This record gives sequence, C-alpha cells and structure tokens, in this order.
Amino acid sequence: MYVEYDQHSYFDQSLQANFKSTESTVSGKNEVLRELLSRHDDFTERHIGPSETEKKDMLQFIGVKDIKELINKAVPENIRLGRELDLEEPKGEHEVLDHLKGIAKNNKLWRSYIGMGYYGCDVPPTIMRNIFENPGWVTQYTPYQAEIAQGRLESLLNYQTMICDMTGLDVANASLLDEATAAAEAMGLCYRYNQRQKFYVDERCHPQTIAVVTTRASVLGIEVICCPADEMDFSKQDIGGVLFQYPDTNGSIEDLSAFVADAQANGTLVVCATDLLALTILKPPGEFEVDITVGTSQRFGVPLGYGGPHAGFFAVKKKYIRMVPGRMIGVTKDGSGKEAYRLVLQTREQHIRRDKATSNICTAQALLANMSAMYAVYHGPHGLKHIGTRVHHAALILNEGVESAGHSQVNNVFYDTLKIMPADQELNNIIQRAQEKKINLRYFPDDHIGVSLDETVEIEDLNDLLWVFGSQKKAEDIAVALERDCPRSLFNTPFKRTSKYLTENVFNRFHSETQIVRYMKILENKDVSLVHSMIPLGSCTMKLNSTTEMIPCSWSEFAHIHPFAPVEQALGYLQLFEELEKDLCEITGYDRISFQPNSGAQGEYAGLRAIMAYLKSKGQSHRTVCLIPASAHGTNPASAQMAGMEIKPIKADKYGEIDMVHLKTMVEKHKDNLACMMITYPSTFGVFEERIRDICSLIHDNGGQIYLDGANMNAQVGLCRPGDYGADVSHLNLHKTFCIPHGGGGPGMGPIGVKRHLAPHLPTHPIIPPYGTTGPEAESFGVISGAPYGSSAILPISWAYIKMMGAEGLRHATEIAILNANYMSHRLKGYYKTLYSNFAGYCAHEFIVDCREFKKTAGVEVVDIAKRLMDYGNKQA
Amino acid sequence: MYVEYDQHSYFDQSLQANFKSTESTVSGKNEVLRELLSRHDDFTERHIGPSETEKKDMLQFIGVKDIKELINKAVPENIRLGRELDLEEPKGEHEVLDHLKGIAKNNKLWRSYIGMGYYGCDVPPTIMRNIFENPGWVTQYTPYQAEIAQGRLESLLNYQTMICDMTGLDVANASLLDEATAAAEAMGLCYRYNQRQKFYVDERCHPQTIAVVTTRASVLGIEVICCPADEMDFSKQDIGGVLFQYPDTNGSIEDLSAFVADAQANGTLVVCATDLLALTILKPPGEFEVDITVGTSQRFGVPLGYGGPHAGFFAVKKKYIRMVPGRMIGVTKDGSGKEAYRLVLQTREQHIRRDKATSNICTAQALLANMSAMYAVYHGPHGLKHIGTRVHHAALILNEGVESAGHSQVNNVFYDTLKIMPADQELNNIIQRAQEKKINLRYFPDDHIGVSLDETVEIEDLNDLLWVFGSQKKAEDIAVALERDCPRSLFNTPFKRTSKYLTENVFNRFHSETQIVRYMKILENKDVSLVHSMIPLGSCTMKLNSTTEMIPCSWSEFAHIHPFAPVEQALGYLQLFEELEKDLCEITGYDRISFQPNSGAQGEYAGLRAIMAYLKSKGQSHRTVCLIPASAHGTNPASAQMAGMEIKPIKADKYGEIDMVHLKTMVEKHKDNLACMMITYPSTFGVFEERIRDICSLIHDNGGQIYLDGANMNAQVGLCRPGDYGADVSHLNLHKTFCIPHGGGGPGMGPIGVKRHLAPHLPTHPIIPPYGTTGPEAESFGVISGAPYGSSAILPISWAYIKMMGAEGLRHATEIAILNANYMSHRLKGYYKTLYSNFAGYCAHEFIVDCREFKKTAGVEVVDIAKRLMDYGNKQA
Repeated sequence: MYVEYDQHSYFDQSLQANFKSTESTVSGKNEVLRELLSRHDDFTERHIGPSETEKKDMLQFIGVKDIKELINKAVPENIRLGRELDLEEPKGEHEVLDHLKGIAKNNKLWRSYIGMGYYGCDVPPTIMRNIFENPGWVTQYTPYQAEIAQGRLESLLNYQTMICDMTGLDVANASLLDEATAAAEAMGLCYRYNQRQKFYVDERCHPQTIAVVTTRASVLGIEVICCPADEMDFSKQDIGGVLFQYPDTNGSIEDLSAFVADAQANGTLVVCATDLLALTILKPPGEFEVDITVGTSQRFGVPLGYGGPHAGFFAVKKKYIRMVPGRMIGVTKDGSGKEAYRLVLQTREQHIRRDKATSNICTAQALLANMSAMYAVYHGPHGLKHIGTRVHHAALILNEGVESAGHSQVNNVFYDTLKIMPADQELNNIIQRAQEKKINLRYFPDDHIGVSLDETVEIEDLNDLLWVFGSQKKAEDIAVALERDCPRSLFNTPFKRTSKYLTENVFNRFHSETQIVRYMKILENKDVSLVHSMIPLGSCTMKLNSTTEMIPCSWSEFAHIHPFAPVEQALGYLQLFEELEKDLCEITGYDRISFQPNSGAQGEYAGLRAIMAYLKSKGQSHRTVCLIPASAHGTNPASAQMAGMEIKPIKADKYGEIDMVHLKTMVEKHKDNLACMMITYPSTFGVFEERIRDICSLIHDNGGQIYLDGANMNAQVGLCRPGDYGADVSHLNLHKTFCIPHGGGGPGMGPIGVKRHLAPHLPTHPIIPPYGTTGPEAESFGVISGAPYGSSAILPISWAYIKMMGAEGLRHATEIAILNANYMSHRLKGYYKTLYSNFAGYCAHEFIVDCREFKKTAGVEVVDIAKRLMDYGNKQA
Repeated sequence: MYVEYDQHSYFDQSLQANFKSTESTVSGKNEVLRELLSRHDDFTERHIGPSETEKKDMLQFIGVKDIKELINKAVPENIRLGRELDLEEPKGEHEVLDHLKGIAKNNKLWRSYIGMGYYGCDVPPTIMRNIFENPGWVTQYTPYQAEIAQGRLESLLNYQTMICDMTGLDVANASLLDEATAAAEAMGLCYRYNQRQKFYVDERCHPQTIAVVTTRASVLGIEVICCPADEMDFSKQDIGGVLFQYPDTNGSIEDLSAFVADAQANGTLVVCATDLLALTILKPPGEFEVDITVGTSQRFGVPLGYGGPHAGFFAVKKKYIRMVPGRMIGVTKDGSGKEAYRLVLQTREQHIRRDKATSNICTAQALLANMSAMYAVYHGPHGLKHIGTRVHHAALILNEGVESAGHSQVNNVFYDTLKIMPADQELNNIIQRAQEKKINLRYFPDDHIGVSLDETVEIEDLNDLLWVFGSQKKAEDIAVALERDCPRSLFNTPFKRTSKYLTENVFNRFHSETQIVRYMKILENKDVSLVHSMIPLGSCTMKLNSTTEMIPCSWSEFAHIHPFAPVEQALGYLQLFEELEKDLCEITGYDRISFQPNSGAQGEYAGLRAIMAYLKSKGQSHRTVCLIPASAHGTNPASAQMAGMEIKPIKADKYGEIDMVHLKTMVEKHKDNLACMMITYPSTFGVFEERIRDICSLIHDNGGQIYLDGANMNAQVGLCRPGDYGADVSHLNLHKTFCIPHGGGGPGMGPIGVKRHLAPHLPTHPIIPPYGTTGPEAESFGVISGAPYGSSAILPISWAYIKMMGAEGLRHATEIAILNANYMSHRLKGYYKTLYSNFAGYCAHEFIVDCREFKKTAGVEVVDIAKRLMDYGNKQA
C-alpha cells in the first residue's frame, strides 16, 4: 500500500511530514495500522502556527541546524529534562470532547438551594453564546491599551455603574476575584486607612468569607475578632474596621444603622457584604452609610461553575477612591476631544510601588463582570426588580408553608433565604425527602436547615420544597392567602428599597434580543483580540484558546453545580482535578497541586504562605526574609508583603542576570532569617540563567525555600522542570501557559505546585476541604479563595490542552516559542539591539529590545512602537 | 402582598405592563400564584422590539386608538380569525431548551455506515462555533448588495474554486439545495441545451437521486430511461443527456471514458454525480471530459443533520456557463478600481425571465457551502488528501477482512464503499451483530450489504466492523499484510489522481486554528448582518434568530443522525416534526404539512405538483392553466413552468390589486383547463386585498385550486389563516416568518401546508417515506428532495419559536409588523408617496414608496437610497 506514497510528493509537504521524528522504524503491526490510519487533524499542528518549511527557514536564519541545537544553546544543560514527559498519548479534538463528556456525566445535577454566596441563575442564552462562547469577547488581553479596548472598557464601566447603583455607594472597581477576597481586600483598606490592628467580623458572614479574611489577617498583624454584632465594642477606638453581611449568611435582615453609626463615630470603617439581587428591592447599604460594600455578581447571569469564575465586587464611598484595590475604568477625552474610556487611578501599581502596593491583585474577573453587566443591561431596572420581587415572593410562600407545617423559621425579616428549625424528629425525614427529590439544602451543624431560593425556582420546585418540609399546602393555596395579607413581605417593612437604580440610558435601551446582540457586537468590534491579530503588549503568553478547549466550560454538568454540593455529586470534577494535577505534576516536577488560587497573584501569595507554614512546622517562624531580584514582576514583592515577609531586593548584573556577588552577600547577611527567594525563570529579561541550580542550592543551604514564579513556564514545559532543579513551589498561570483565555482581564487561574514537604500546608476550605487537606498530617495555612477549587469551571480548558498536545506536542510548543523569539531577535538585529541573551547569544521565549536610542535620535518612544504595532495588527481586519 | 406593587410605579413601566391584556380578572388561585411568580423573561418581549411606550407613540402617530383598531382597518373583516390560535402556553427560553433536550434524547446515535450521499464527518469545532453558531455568519441576507457582503462573497468564491478544483471542471455555482436536485437541474440544463426529450439515468445512481430526477422529468415532457450504462444507446442522437455516478451508489469505480466519448459524439451531454472526498485521490470527472458534475459537499465539514441542510454542488464546462442554475460569484472591480466580489451572471433571473427562467432556484445553501469551503481552507490540499487517503485505507482493510471471512465483495475498484454478498446463511448473523454494536449498514433488497466508511472511522470502529462480518482478523493484522502488497489500492490503478488541486493561496495559508479563526473573523467583519443593523433590502422578512432557537441545531442528537437510519432511531425527530406540523396546521388552517421542500421555491413546485396530482386523481389531467398576477414574485411563474403548467398572467388595477375584470375574463376563457391560481397574500404591493375570499371562490367554482404563496405569512399569523379563506395549499418560508436565519443565502425551509383533499398527494421518499405518504390512499406525485424531511436539522428553530411565543405572542408579532409598516408609511408621508394602501388607507406589513420623482428632480435612484440606508445602518457599528 505504501508504494503509492510518493504520489504525495506533488504537495509541498509529504504526508508524514510533521514535527514528529520520522526516523522511528515501524516495528510492530500496531504501528503500521496507526500509520495507515493516522489522523490528519493533529491538534498540535493546529495549535502551533509555523509550518515545517517555515520552521526550517527560521532555524536557518538564526544559524542553527535544527531545533535540538537551538534548545541545547538556549537552555542550560544541567537543568534539561533529558526525556519526554510521561503523559498519555495525545487525543484528537473530537476524541477529547467525547472523553470529557464521559467525565462530565459523573457530575450529578441536583437542585441546589444551599445559597452561601452561590445561586442558580438563568444565564440569558444570547449572553452565553455571544460573550462567554465568543472568542471576540473571551480572548482579549487586559485593557491596558485603551485604543484597542473601548468596547471592553465601556462594558466594565457599565459594571461599575451597576455596582454603585445597586449598593448605593459612590465608586466601584472593575471586579475582584470573588466575594471572600473582596472582603479581605476591604480589611486591608481599613488597615491602610487607619492603621488599627483589630478587625471585627460578624459571625453571621459566610464561613468561607470569614476563613479568607482570617487567613489574610494572620500575617499582616491584624487581629480578627469574630463575634456577634451586638458584642462588638468600638468605644476604645482601636477597631480598624468591621465586616458584616446584609442579608446575613442565615438570610436574616436586620437594621444595623445605629451599629454603623456607632462604629463610624469611633473611627471604625464599616464593610458590608451584600447581595445584588436582594438590593433590587432591599434598601441598599449606601443608604445607611457603610464605607465599603463587597459581594459577588455571580447571580447576575453567571453560571455556578462549581465555584467560579465569578466577579467579586468592591465599592466604596468617594473618599476612599485612591485606596481601592484592583482596576477601575474611567471616562476621559481622547486626542480629538471625544469621550473615551481608559483604566484610571492605579493600574498595576505594583510595578511602581512594589511591596508598598495597595494589593497584589492583578488578574480580576473582567469576562464575568462583563456578563453580569450585560445581564443588567438586558434586563434593565424593571426586569431586575421583577426578578428580585419574584424570588422574594417564592421565599414568602415557602416560609408560610414551612411554618404552617410546624417548623420554626428563625429569620424575622428575610429576602430569599430561610433558616429553619425543624419540628421534633423531623430533620431526618426532611433530609431524606430532599434527597428523594434530588434537592440540596444547607444543613447547619446545629440541626437547622437553610434554604436559599433563586431566579430559577419554578412553581414545581416550590411545591417540591413544600413537600420536602411536609407541608400539606400547595404553593397556590398559600399564594391566595398571602395575596390578602403578607406582613413579612419586605415591601411592608422599612427595609424596602425606595431609591431608583440603573437610570442611565444604557440600562434602558437594549431589552430586545436584537438590540442586545447588536450592542454586544458593537462593543466586540471596537476591540482588538486574538481573533484579530497578535496583541502588541505583554509579557503574558497570549496563546490560542481553542474552541475544543472552551466548549466543555458551557456544558451544564460543569456549569450548573454548586461548589458546596455534596462531593458525591461532583465526582466528574474530582476526576478532572485529579487528572489535571497528575499531568501538571509531571510537567513541573512537583508532587502536589492546589487549584484553589484563582489568579497568579493568589498563587504567589498561597505559595509563600505554604512556605511560612512549613517553616513554622519546623519551629522556624522567625524566618521572614524574602529575597527578590530587582527584575521581578511587581506582583512578587506585593504578594510577599501581604504574606507578612520582609522583602530584600537583589541586584541584577550587567547581563540582566542575578548579581551573584550581591546575592551571596545578602544570603550571608540574612541566613538566620531567610525564608525564601522568589525568582522568575526564565527571567523577565528573557534569559535562561545558567546558575539557577546553584542559586537554588545556595538558598536551600541557608535554610530558605525557593518560590519559582511560573509565569514563564511556557519556555520550560517539556524541556525542564522547576521541581527538578531546586524549586519548592510555583504557581502556574493556567491563563498563560495552559490556554485559559485572558478574558479581557480575567478569569485566570493560578494553582500552585509544591514539593512533597510543602504539601501538608496547602490551602484548605471550611466547607469542602480539597482532597489531601484533611489528613492527620495536614497543617494548612488557611483558605485563599471562596471556593474550594477556585475557578473550577475553566479547568477543563487546561485539561483538554494537555490531553490534546501530549508530551511531544507540549515540548514542541515550548521549542517553537523559543525559536520564534530567537528568530525575531535575529531579524531585528541591526535595527534594534536585544538587551540580554545567554552566553551563547540566545534568548528564551521572549527578549527585550533597547529603544532608548530612538528617543534621542527621533523622539520615538516605546509606546509609539507599541501603537504602530496596534495599527498594523488591526490592518488585517 | 400586592399592596406594594405600586412601588413599581417609579419605573417607567409597571411590572404588569406588557402587551397582554391586563383586564383579565384574577379568578383562580393558580392565577394568583402565576402572577406572583410570573417570569420576567417573556420571550415575546425579547423577540418584538418596541416597548409599550413606543407602541403607544406609534399608534398615536398614525391616528388609531389601539392595535385592535389598526388591525380592524388593515385586515379585511371577512377573513379574520376571530379567536386566539389554539397553541400550548408559551414556554420560557430555558424551559423550551429543557423540553427539547428531552425530545432530542429520543434520537439514538448509532454509527451509520449507510453512505448513499450522507457520511459522518468531523466538523472542525472552530468552524462549528465561529460560523455555524455565530450570528455574525448566520444572519446575513443573500449577498445581493456586494458592498456589505464581501466576506460572504469571498467565502462562496472559495467554495466555487474548491468545487472546480476537486471535480476538474471549469465553473461552479455557489451551491444548490442538495445532490438530488442538482442532478435534476443538470437534466434541465441538458434539455434546454439540446431540446432532446430523452434522458438516460444509470441505475447505479443513488435511489433518491433517481427519484427526484424522475419526478422532475415527468411534467417537463422528458422521458427518463433508467438502465445500466452498457444498455444505453446514443446512436439515434435523441438522448439529451445521461447521468451516471462515480463512484456509483454501490461504491464501484469504473472506467467510463469511452462511454462518455460515445455519448458526446452523439450530441448527448454527460452528467456525473460524484464524491468530493473520493476525488482527493481519484481521477476527477473533468479529466474524462464530462460536461456537468453534481454532488453534495456535506462530508466536507457539515453535520449529517438527519438529511440537511447541506450544500449541493453544480459545476460545468465553460461553454455551459450561461445556463447554470442558481447563483454564481465572480471577481470584478469596484469604483476605485480595486478587486471586489459580486454576484455575476444571472441573479434571480426569474424576475426578468419569469416562466422562461433557467430554474426556480432562489434560496441555496450558502451557510453550508461556506462551512465546506472553510473546511477545505482549514485542511488545505495536503490535509484533504490525508483524510481522503485514510478513509480509503480503512476501506481496503475492511475489504480484506470481509473477503477473508468468506464473503464476496462485488466492487472490483472502490474508494470507501463495499458491496458485500454475505456467505451462505450469514446475512442474519451479520445484521444481528451489527445491531449489537449499534451499527447501521446499508441492506440492499437483494440481500447484499453496503458499508461506506468515512472520516470518523477509528481503529475500534474498524475492528467492530470486522467482528460484525465474522472476520477472525484484526485490523492490525490486515494492515501489515496490505502494507506489503495491495493491488486494490486506488494508488495502484489508473484511477489514481495525478492532478493538483487547491493550489490557490487561500487554501494554503490558514492551517493553524489561530489563522483560521482570524480569517473567519476578517470575513465576518466585512459584512453587514442582523447583528449590525437592519438589512436595507428585501421583501423577505428578516427576523431575530434567537440564540435559544439556534442552540439545539448543534446538539449531537439532532446533528449526527443519518437520514436513512431506521426510524426507530429518529423518534425524537419524528416527535418534533409531528408537533411542528400540528402547530403549523393550527396557524395556517391547513390539515397536513410536508417538510420535504427545503426552500420556498421547492415548496411552490411541490404544492403545484400536489395540485396536479389531485386533478389527475379526479381524471382532470387536462387542467394545466395557472393564473398568476403580474405582481407576483418571479419564482411563481418559474415554478409553475417547471411543474408543466401553462402560465396566464392577470393584470393589476390602479390600486395594485388584482384586476377583477381581467381575472373574470381569464377564468371564463380558461375554465375548462383551469388548474389553479397562484396568489401572494398580502400582495407584494403590501396590501390585504379585500376580495381574497371572492377570488378563491371564483377559482374553485371554475374547477381550479388556490396556491397561496406563504412568503407574507408574517402579516397573517394569528390574524387570519389561508386555509380558512379559501386557499388549498401554501408553502411556508420558515426562514422568513418562522425565524430560521437566512444564512447569507440559505439554508431555507419551504414546507407546504395543504387542505385534506391534497394530503394524499404530498411528496414521498424511496427510502424513508414520510409518515402519511404510504397508506393505501396515498398517491404522491413523487420526490422533491434527497432527504425525506428536507433540512431537518434546522426545524428545531421554528419549533422553538412557536413554543416560546405562544398564540398571543405570535399574533402580537404580526400586529407589530403591521404597526411598524404603517408607522413608517405615515412617517414618510410628505416626503415619499406610499404607492398602495387599502380602502381605509392602511398597508399590511410592508409598503412601496414611489421614488420616480426623485430621479427626475435630483437624479436620485432607488439604489442610491438603498446604499444610504447601508451607510446609516453601518454607522451603529
């Protein structure tokens, strides 16, 4: 049959030609068959741009024989892996989807009325398809370059407006990672504002919020006092801030205005965690003068996704505007005087302020904030009020049925959530009936039951719930009675909202599907994303986010599961996590992965905290010094500072490498207190430093740990592994190296990999402790995110990427990244000077060109070049 | 609870405010509950643009009190329905998807190796998502306006290039409806070319192709002689054309070059139905000089979809270019001398040539042609050849296994299809084993078995098939043997392809996913579609194609089922058809629906043929006169001519209405031979004629039938029903009134509704007769499409639309269409003269303004206004 293969020679490339070695002898009969039936559609070739011919041309141009020679020259021999990664055979695109569908089916979709910050919601299908499933919205980079991000910026401004209007505060940022971290950021703001070291937390906040706040506080020297609001004493004027929740985690709504006034009178800042849907009919916190509100906008049109990604929100009174963490969008004027949007206030201020930064927040949840904003635009104030009222009606009906069945409901005033003390002996019956109906409720340790209703609740659901609670009444019977008299309706209490919201034009124009589709398209087409061209900015690896990787994120088995559902219902997710952990461990050389950190910065923070917990377990809590090279990403010192470390910068030598003399001096100086060194590898100067192993050893020898920033893993996958050459912990930006799209500034995912000795110290969770964080040996440092596995719903992306690429494909992607960078560097030689390269003259996967001369000779600055790149990139379209 | 509803008054609209009557008294307790828990997201409001306030303003402007008064004035009383349609309660978007998912699950997804023109294929996920699931590609209108359709036109040109290259012919059109109708169109071309009335069809064509060709021929006075090729005699020079298939329906490949030469030497045109994937390695028909090739491009990246939609292709030698049916794209120069694309040659030439038109084809399959073109662009010549070779390898391996198991395989040379005579007594065992493995094969009436392999076949599938045929060998064993010696490989025969294909740059550039995504986006953004603005052209109703309606079309249960799979596997589809038929019958007043016609023109043709079959059954075959008003859409006379009717035009009076005097004269003159009258209602002049009932009666009284063109059903749904006021049959453009998107020129769907007496004459099918076409009373006129239910895969769109709108919603959409048109007509009064309106001064859902004066006074023509509308529409974006 092979005799005719020469027929293929009239094409440019032979059938067999791909990057794989063609030298392997066809030994077994399986190989013959596989060769005869080899798939054309090798995903690797779809992922990696250059053709074989182009690769050859590039190699020739830079003067090396083949890829192997290039890698030998660019990557130090003493760290190279020397074998192929041990991963499964690569799967085709359709095959991987079939396989993942099988995994997804192990997730069971019960109705969840657990609440606790996560609620079922009806994602408008047009928003799901035209934003969440549309690469024109998903693949944007963070909108640093306003010229090519006006659409994204307008939508984020809508988000901010929505948050301000709903909460009644003055200014909001463009999202944070989740409600729990937003609460922790609020605590940080209070501390920065008044330097007081005590922080009250009302015990009726969500447990995960309390856990994250407490975890964050412990190393900042802040004492968190968690107690009931009525036991708080502000009179000593030593309380920096107080956090309470409204409605609280039990669903109760109370008048805390006197409490707020008392706190503020004593110089305490007041933080209120609140609920956007409740605020459609509930008096907003801004109207009783709180200083800061936080929360999640998940239930505004974002799927549960087993905990994320969702946008956390953060709004403050105007006077705190300059202390707000994260990013904020504002209106400005462009060169021609027209209104335009841009990032305002601090944008990645860590670069400037480093360890003095407000926060280490970098990635936020732009895509999800945009979905929520569009949900508000689509429904408008009238629609939101309707939805909000309807959910409250359902809760009133349920409450009536539950009480008439002989249970007692403890919330006097409530919005959507009931806390029920079942009648004698009834608890187990209720649990059993709920299971029969496949309904998840919140079971409190003290035998109370919580029920949180949401937008998806239909009449049948309500009747099922009534049946579960043993009510003889049907919803329709109760409705008739309530229509006559309903004293517990919020509308009959002083808590009813009387102020308007979302009166801006944009929230009152696009209520038909045609209109919203056009609005989404108008915004989409104002931006440049990967569907248009390369992004002319960023050390972040902007990768193809393939459709096949993205598809599973919308499957209901992944999208519609509550993060606190019993784990037996999430076995599909657990399998996915386990498989992805196994693969990431093989790729990095680490022993365990924690998926809880949902951004790179969170990963850094979690990794440093794990180091500290480890040191503590060894009785070395005094080790707090963190060495950070001057060239490091600004997030590094910001994270280290938040982790309570003392930062000591290390100089760079003239080659851009770590100044070994300075390093040794500093190690010597701090060796008794050395906690760790943070290092980015290859460096942000784009070079594989030869001495990485030596550096790691030096630190280890002096009692410290190595935190290796995984931002540049794209230059290492398949070639070398941090776990092999001495690193103890790294975060992996799955939104860089592992194909999660940037979403215009989030979602991201920053899981951390650790060596075995750090594994007991990985993040845990108060409701659903991730596997491995509960054993007798576990000594977790605490909780880093609201959800146990961070932004679970986007993990299928990285899982699928690895499964489709396989070991050879992943390695080859790395090789081509290095080839591309060296080719470009060589191409630009003579016009631009590449600042740093290794001893052999080669860079890693990126390089820096020196433009200082142009400024002198032609007044051309770096930013001018960037803008010209935008123009040319745009030209394609 | 209601006491607080006045809270809503601070919004512009009250919570209850929508188009629904608010007067209904809340009588039962169910109503109370439904009111309390009413969904905000009424789909009707999402579908219909104007708000209550806007509606009021419009009504006021045109001087009527309310919608009711407007409808009373616009629609003749004697045809009004006078009640609400009897449809199910409307469902919400999520509810309708859940419900449809339940229906979809009744389709069973077996592996189908039936072949016969429908093959499994791997649709590249990126093409599925970025074209098929992207409103930016799906909602375009036919590219009549080149300025706003350069993207679409470029892709269709790629399609034409691909068809020419693969088949080896000179010119191709931009798609036809399917392979079977393409073959029938080819027969028509032969007849027009040489006027000979005999047409040979090789009996080894697909049965549905033979059926459609025969059906079409019967009324054109063409005699179809179906026999083996070697019995054909061209020497009498009376044969217009000959159709054969290559590879044939059994899978056999034979050298017919002498046969072709013989036919052509005698003035017979040669038509070859062929297979695109086979042609990747098989000598193309152009190389043995056939005149015309036809086929389907389904297996180039379009899902099976239970029969459609797929693009049929049609390519000819250059000398026949002016006789090609359908649309063709060409390259031209724009005003500034730059290369640009446009529709060339005939475009809707029916408008000019009417009953002399080449064909009645109007809607084609642009969207699916674009998917196939993009599949070729993505894979490139190298990839296509790889895929084509791989499928052939699989067939060679299977053949070897089947033969070694003692069966005889009858195709000496084959590509992907085997025809197998099972060993003695083995047939039933094979059938049973195939069922056990959930595999569909082709079972011939003469106990042969057909197996057609395709791109999706994996090694496990091959081993399953070997097992089904009782082979002791595994695929890997056979592969080793075949690698040594494989005389039956096409590469070892003179049939191997030696010519290049797809050498154009566009097919050799976009092979990475990043590249193809950008290419698709570049083309998308060159066009104007419903996602950008209104479409400034067309009497066609461009409706919102909502995401919820579109989503189910991609579900595998609908997308991946072979049209000739046993009906027990398609119960979901059958349920869908049944429910949609019931709803459409209620909407139109007809008794039965046939879904087989997959375009409006096909529907017209099928309806007229049903009329003729009915007349024949009454012994009135002599009735052949068809009266058509002068104002009718050009497709009407073209269809009537194809149906073998004699067309007599009826004049319009000065009000744009049918000239009753002329009509009566013509009826009197032709009453003995009167077959029918075709009438568009409301008329293309935009008026509900008062006398429609009288006209219908007049025709009936004189022995004729009424064909009512359903193109303007959008002005009637819920207000009046053709079946009530006298029509006997209509086609329904589901791609106009019932939300199937236009796809840039297709797919469309043109099912026909008929009164009971015509039902026995509806289209049937040789493989899977649609329900109701097989009973003893059935006297079908024949077969209209290759697939039994036409373009089944897009029917969920119309089904969902009706379910979500409900009776009130559908009626209200019609009312608003009429309101919009009358409002615009009034708005333009004083600037533009509306040519026609009814006695009360109102138009229907459209109107015509007279622009002739502008030409005289300002040199401004209609086209100038259209182009300015484009400019303004575009401005939004």
